Amino acid sequence: MLRMSDEFKFRTEQDSLGSASVPEDAYYGIHTVRARDNFAVSGRPAHRRLMRAMVLVKKAAAKVNGQHGDIPESAAKAIQLSCDDILAGLLDDHFIVDAYQGGAGTSTNMNVNEMIANRAIEWLGGIKGDYRLVHPIDHVNLYQSTNDVYPTALRIAVIPLLRLLSEELSSLQEALQEKERQYADVLRLGRTQLMDALPIMAGQSFGAYAKAVARDRWRLYKAEERLREINIGGTAVGTGMNAPLTYAYAIAEELREMTGLGLCRSDFPMDATQNMDVFVETSGLLKAAAVNLLKISGDFRLLNSGPSGGIGEYKLPAVQVGSSIMPGKVNPVIAEMAGSVSMRVIANDTAVTLAAASGQLELNAFTPLIAEALLESLELLSRAVPLFKERCVQGLKLDADRCHQNLSRSGVMAAAAVSYLGYDTAAELAMAVTATGEPLEQLLQERGLMEEEQIEAILHPLEVTKPGIPGSGRGV
Amino acid sequence: MLRMSDEFKFRTEQDSLGSASVPEDAYYGIHTVRARDNFAVSGRPAHRRLMRAMVLVKKAAAKVNGQHGDIPESAAKAIQLSCDDILAGLLDDHFIVDAYQGGAGTSTNMNVNEMIANRAIEWLGGIKGDYRLVHPIDHVNLYQSTNDVYPTALRIAVIPLLRLLSEELSSLQEALQEKERQYADVLRLGRTQLMDALPIMAGQSFGAYAKAVARDRWRLYKAEERLREINIGGTAVGTGMNAPLTYAYAIAEELREMTGLGLCRSDFPMDATQNMDVFVETSGLLKAAAVNLLKISGDFRLLNSGPSGGIGEYKLPAVQVGSSIMPGKVNPVIAEMAGSVSMRVIANDTAVTLAAASGQLELNAFTPLIAEALLESLELLSRAVPLFKERCVQGLKLDADRCHQNLSRSGVMAAAAVSYLGYDTAAELAMAVTATGEPLEQLLQERGLMEEEQIEAILHPLEVTKPGIPGSGRGV
Amino acid sequence: MLRMSDEFKFRTEQDSLGSASVPEDAYYGIHTVRARDNFAVSGRPAHRRLMRAMVLVKKAAAKVNGQHGDIPESAAKAIQLSCDDILAGLLDDHFIVDAYQGGAGTSTNMNVNEMIANRAIEWLGGIKGDYRLVHPIDHVNLYQSTNDVYPTALRIAVIPLLRLLSEELSSLQEALQEKERQYADVLRLGRTQLMDALPIMAGQSFGAYAKAVARDRWRLYKAEERLREINIGGTAVGTGMNAPLTYAYAIAEELREMTGLGLCRSDFPMDATQNMDVFVETSGLLKAAAVNLLKISGDFRLLNSGPSGGIGEYKLPAVQVGSSIMPGKVNPVIAEMAGSVSMRVIANDTAVTLAAASGQLELNAFTPLIAEALLESLELLSRAVPLFKERCVQGLKLDADRCHQNLSRSGVMAAAAVSYLGYDTAAELAMAVTATGEPLEQLLQERGLMEEEQIEAILHPLEVTKPGIPGSGRGV
Amino acid sequence: MLRMSDEFKFRTEQDSLGSASVPEDAYYGIHTVRARDNFAVSGRPAHRRLMRAMVLVKKAAAKVNGQHGDIPESAAKAIQLSCDDILAGLLDDHFIVDAYQGGAGTSTNMNVNEMIANRAIEWLGGIKGDYRLVHPIDHVNLYQSTNDVYPTALRIAVIPLLRLLSEELSSLQEALQEKERQYADVLRLGRTQLMDALPIMAGQSFGAYAKAVARDRWRLYKAEERLREINIGGTAVGTGMNAPLTYAYAIAEELREMTGLGLCRSDFPMDATQNMDVFVETSGLLKAAAVNLLKISGDFRLLNSGPSGGIGEYKLPAVQVGSSIMPGKVNPVIAEMAGSVSMRVIANDTAVTLAAASGQLELNAFTPLIAEALLESLELLSRAVPLFKERCVQGLKLDADRCHQNLSRSGVMAAAAVSYLGYDTAAELAMAVTATGEPLEQLLQERGLMEEEQIEAILHPLEVTKPGIPGSGRGV
Repeated sequence: MLRMSDEFKFRTEQDSLGSASVPEDAYYGIHTVRARDNFAVSGRPAHRRLMRAMVLVKKAAAKVNGQHGDIPESAAKAIQLSCDDILAGLLDDHFIVDAYQGGAGTSTNMNVNEMIANRAIEWLGGIKGDYRLVHPIDHVNLYQSTNDVYPTALRIAVIPLLRLLSEELSSLQEALQEKERQYADVLRLGRTQLMDALPIMAGQSFGAYAKAVARDRWRLYKAEERLREINIGGTAVGTGMNAPLTYAYAIAEELREMTGLGLCRSDFPMDATQNMDVFVETSGLLKAAAVNLLKISGDFRLLNSGPSGGIGEYKLPAVQVGSSIMPGKVNPVIAEMAGSVSMRVIANDTAVTLAAASGQLELNAFTPLIAEALLESLELLSRAVPLFKERCVQGLKLDADRCHQNLSRSGVMAAAAVSYLGYDTAAELAMAVTATGEPLEQLLQERGLMEEEQIEAILHPLEVTKPGIPGSGRGV
Repeated sequence: MLRMSDEFKFRTEQDSLGSASVPEDAYYGIHTVRARDNFAVSGRPAHRRLMRAMVLVKKAAAKVNGQHGDIPESAAKAIQLSCDDILAGLLDDHFIVDAYQGGAGTSTNMNVNEMIANRAIEWLGGIKGDYRLVHPIDHVNLYQSTNDVYPTALRIAVIPLLRLLSEELSSLQEALQEKERQYADVLRLGRTQLMDALPIMAGQSFGAYAKAVARDRWRLYKAEERLREINIGGTAVGTGMNAPLTYAYAIAEELREMTGLGLCRSDFPMDATQNMDVFVETSGLLKAAAVNLLKISGDFRLLNSGPSGGIGEYKLPAVQVGSSIMPGKVNPVIAEMAGSVSMRVIANDTAVTLAAASGQLELNAFTPLIAEALLESLELLSRAVPLFKERCVQGLKLDADRCHQNLSRSGVMAAAAVSYLGYDTAAELAMAVTATGEPLEQLLQERGLMEEEQIEAILHPLEVTKPGIPGSGRGV
Repeated sequence: MLRMSDEFKFRTEQDSLGSASVPEDAYYGIHTVRARDNFAVSGRPAHRRLMRAMVLVKKAAAKVNGQHGDIPESAAKAIQLSCDDILAGLLDDHFIVDAYQGGAGTSTNMNVNEMIANRAIEWLGGIKGDYRLVHPIDHVNLYQSTNDVYPTALRIAVIPLLRLLSEELSSLQEALQEKERQYADVLRLGRTQLMDALPIMAGQSFGAYAKAVARDRWRLYKAEERLREINIGGTAVGTGMNAPLTYAYAIAEELREMTGLGLCRSDFPMDATQNMDVFVETSGLLKAAAVNLLKISGDFRLLNSGPSGGIGEYKLPAVQVGSSIMPGKVNPVIAEMAGSVSMRVIANDTAVTLAAASGQLELNAFTPLIAEALLESLELLSRAVPLFKERCVQGLKLDADRCHQNLSRSGVMAAAAVSYLGYDTAAELAMAVTATGEPLEQLLQERGLMEEEQIEAILHPLEVTKPGIPGSGRGV
Repeated sequence: MLRMSDEFKFRTEQDSLGSASVPEDAYYGIHTVRARDNFAVSGRPAHRRLMRAMVLVKKAAAKVNGQHGDIPESAAKAIQLSCDDILAGLLDDHFIVDAYQGGAGTSTNMNVNEMIANRAIEWLGGIKGDYRLVHPIDHVNLYQSTNDVYPTALRIAVIPLLRLLSEELSSLQEALQEKERQYADVLRLGRTQLMDALPIMAGQSFGAYAKAVARDRWRLYKAEERLREINIGGTAVGTGMNAPLTYAYAIAEELREMTGLGLCRSDFPMDATQNMDVFVETSGLLKAAAVNLLKISGDFRLLNSGPSGGIGEYKLPAVQVGSSIMPGKVNPVIAEMAGSVSMRVIANDTAVTLAAASGQLELNAFTPLIAEALLESLELLSRAVPLFKERCVQGLKLDADRCHQNLSRSGVMAAAAVSYLGYDTAAELAMAVTATGEPLEQLLQERGLMEEEQIEAILHPLEVTKPGIPGSGRGV
């Protein structure tokens, strides 16, 4: 938030609606002040990554407009220096427009324009508010409209987060595959509908998670293609009126170079000005990743349940004390945090969907909500995923005794003998194991149903966790 | 679906757009035929309960209009007889307009108007399509508009289902309270964040569920108040233009008597014509009930997990065989069905919310989607709740041995001794129980920490499951 | 965020997992430090209103425990003074646990416990970290568990916001009713499905909005009943083990007095510990309010559309300049902000629903997400509603000329003559007006269909906007 | 629904839970009867396309198992004939298991197994229920589990609908592009935030829609890749135990050939058995398509609003009469239907997401809900899209006069002169046009601001709808 000067001095600025007081040391101006008052709802400014991406666009515009002689060279230089200052974080307190603003981002755009102009005025030795030197609209915003700057900046803010998340997912995938290898030969009970089912290798389930995470990564990687098309140069409705085509080409090229993100100018900027489906797509894919994270973290919590009165096959790392009232209790808080973040991502997808569906005619007035929700989802996931990997997956240990115990007192292994003894006998054996706790091997021998050698062949861990009739050689 | 006559004969009807062929034996007419073709998307007709509620409105209107002399007495009589036929289910195949229709319900209204008119024509000895005898618009629909009939009918369809559901919830509450009594003195391990926590009486958790279900019931009961206000008589935009006020009062009174639902005429019909928040409220409360059902059924599935490799403290009734490949497997399918229905109710709430928020000016064009989603939620819940009660709750059994076993091998009971031994010693004991499986009672004695009598006093089931320091008498 | 001392000095603290460095001037301690690192995802701390409500609970506990002699009087006093400091906002920078935390709120609870303890230690002349004077768990948290403190505090945080919002809605209702009176006799075109429909008085539509807002207010008012039941004293699983019953009664009474919110102790604390349906209910009602706000603000935007190429019947107040590229453009940004906030509230409801449905057994591990989403919705609405009232509703003006123009060039008024001329003639007239733009009055006279006097009687604004056949006297 | 024989005769069947009565002429058996009673909630059977896809899997299995000699050749033949009968729709009335079933699809699988077995028994001359000839489990279900059959069948059901929808979207894209060409030179007012904005060519907005629809099509096309991986052969938990690997390869190949869908066997069947993210992805993309459809259909409704008191620039085809009370009213019902379907698709995505996130360990118990919601979304969209194209897009006409009128009475064209006259003069002109209705051209001349020739050059339709300063030649 803004720290005002001790003496609360103000300057007066004008716009077409009249005049307003602006704190004397504020880099923002009258448009921002009006917006601050109009949208005082969340107390949270628009997302910093978006603001910075907008500053990048302004810097590119100033460079191009300076080169083309459309603004004075001194103004162009000062604007670029100002942009650098803001990108370095020096003026963050002056981003004050609320995240939940009306107006398709106009106020965010003006907040940026005014900050840059006033900083540039200082670079040129003027005092803030003297817009004759550098004007927020005539110089900083020249040839631009919120309606092309904002969607362009949003893409520039989203893509690096998408790449970051993709890398974090890749890293999570590797950690899961490491667990797959580590527990490749520990047999544990499988469970379907939470009921005892066929045995699996503990490692296999990590392999299944890794596959799902790999898909997440691939999908996010592919979504980038559609995000790289920017509508800069389209001005207010996408036709590009009042922006020279030379400018439109040059700024797109400039942004392409400045960001290194492979951006390209849309061949139909009107599309990206009004259609927000690309963000719905991206958010939907984040939701798919959240669903996988909920599933995996939920499984971890289930298998870690106990230590005594639950399944107890996993031992998640203890990262903090769990209870003041119950000595020794440790909770799966990292898995819960991952779940919590996932639910938020799913909820944010609702916001993105609603906002995108509410676009009307040549513009979507609710792009700021899309930006807020989408950037939050991306940041949350790209921070939660590595925490989950480092503090939950990598330190996870198996309680091999518990795995063995849970499996051996269950009758499910009788399924391996169905092909030899028939379904009915196998079913009877299964129930006997469950009822008495007597091991299946023992029952088979006692009842003279199989020889020890055959029992070993059939119930061998590798036989019961791969395709085929166990012990028959028919799997291969 | 419609069964056409073998010879596929057609009659021709006219409207202001031209003419169209109508199957000769169809009770519906040209407006319905056009709507059938315009909205051929889901293949599912509008909800039967809504259709019947609309027929009730038509019957009331015919009675009033006949009494007031605004339509011929013969037509009024014939219309009422036709309504009775339809309410008896004789013409169900002629409800053919798709559930996902455009137009705020106009096509549903016309489907009903045409069916009634043609049936009434038959009652008067005419042949279908001869609307001089009874006209769908001039007679059946007299003084009505889709915009007042539809929201009124929707309320008439919703209230009885709300009452039914309320009763079913009440009955579920009783079944849960019966379990509360039945297991009032069986101690079991409590679990927070799925980890072993303080002990509870198994009955207590049924009591907690019963409280939640009681709230659901109360909330649904209270929502009815706002549903009882009907906008009949408001005609197209709620002003009531073209409907005599005498009619408006009389039909509201007639519907009040016919339905016995305590309906009353809105003092501001324009409100109910355009604002759908009452349905959003109702759907939101159904969602709350669904959340409770998900929580309860999820708990049942967790506590029923096993039988060997899970928690295994509950034994849900076996209602069907669970697996062809795993002998003896029985799954908690009723609890899963309840969960599945709950998720659908949550999803339907999204539909109701979107549709209600999409109202514009004097009407909401998406009321048919609201109707569809809300009635589905109500029906699903009012059927799933009794199945859940009868096939899952009532037959549920506790595995007292497993409860005891899970509790005794856990160290949590050491928490009961914290006030006597201090947190550190209690923590050490807890860990020793968990690690060795040696009972706490034994450890306390072996280490000379407490006398047997004190141990019994402190660890007594009634002491550890009620307020107070166990064994101190300070709880009471 | 925390400002560390320039020299970055640290103290070392211990817990059962080991030791950790805590910034020397931090009021929080080791549990908070671990949580800070475990949950570094959003960078946003848990909601301040929740934190303060927790501090209130701690203050009440200290008072009771001091009075009962369960903690030293000096500690009790110091804790209460510390709580006052925190409530005064002096230590806000030390709330550092992330909003998206795992663990049902344990870390938030410990953040508060540690802050209070260290501040109390200072009050007693000690130095931070010397927990012999005042201990975060043994003194501040005595007889408490996160699982009873957190849901209790959440209710204490929610209720005042609910009341505030209720008042703001009441105030919005009044502003709408003022508009209802102001425009009680300005006739405008009604529109159904966006198409020209029967005329209404402009004031009537404000009346319809006021009715909807009145329902919102009433519903929120009634939901409070269920929020006032608190589970304090229930400790970890709701049984109340390890908390004396005297304490449980006394703290509930203390909180009742301190807050003035009419709180009462639940007769079954286990219920409120694990069931979150009350928050789903509340959030669902906020969603209903959001739907109404979306509808109303959407209507404002539609009727304000133009000024030339749209409907143009409303003139929303100009609160900021709309475009740098289009001279004179002013946008309906307050209505858009209200829409944006409404969509966020709907999205937050998804989060609340998911989190509440994810409760398991004796606890819901996702209460922090519920708290975050619900408090955000409440704050957003209670700030957006007055802004909407003051900056959009109250200054709204009607363009009476445009209202007249839109109505008179439309043929819909012909509907008023249906009872006199028959449907077909009326339809023909309607089409003639639409096609030629010739006023209906003129056409009626020219064609000799009605006398001037009758025309006036039938088309009189008061006749066409109330129940009855216009001009027939049959309405009354 | 099932038509029972007139005499209501029954046969008795057995399973491991006991016996039950089955209608004598029913092709289903005891498992289906139990499921019918357990899941009597919606009254709607599982989706027919899913059932048929399951029959295809059964046919492939029978063929393979017959060839391998694992079931008698006669049974294999009879099973395949039965499958053909069912695929031809002869036994549809015997699909009776409810769509909202518990159990991951087991009951759907058994419904299919029993129908096939009983039909095959008839083919072999036996009587229904005599499972010695063909057994539902031992023969029809051999080497299969619900857990591999169901996800495989769901993919087989989804892919053709995805392709169909993709084609329909392609066709819609073409229709939009046809409109783009048709109205390439009709100038109309652009609107941002519903307020008058820069002019565009009417054709351009169709081009923007076409771009969005093209993305939908491309995304759905790409999602298919991930759907083509099937887990058949994985049996209960994905390891493939009890199914010979030779069978697993052969059935995958057989299904590949039978379906022509490019299916391939997953290299890790355990993944597809438990992870449902592919369906979340697909549903999310359908949601993106729904968002586009909502946007486009909403724009159509806005631009079609009127005919007199709205924007009135579009004339949507009249497909049915709109009102009984308002003569001549025609409503945009096809666009509304498209909106309604879109909202249902968005709501279904909530169901898919919730169900997918609720998977636990080796299986997702809620796959039937995923199937139901996803298949409904696909069918609704693939039917709504061509209706929208044929009955709304293709017949859409522009009211060129209204376009001209709306534009000419607006001041926005003054923006084209900003570069020549400066912002302030342009703003003044804009306001003058709006206030007086005097055309801009006239004002410019009257005030002597520009020569006629220059005015024409600057305000030329082609100049104001393409990049560049109008009239400057700088655009090119």
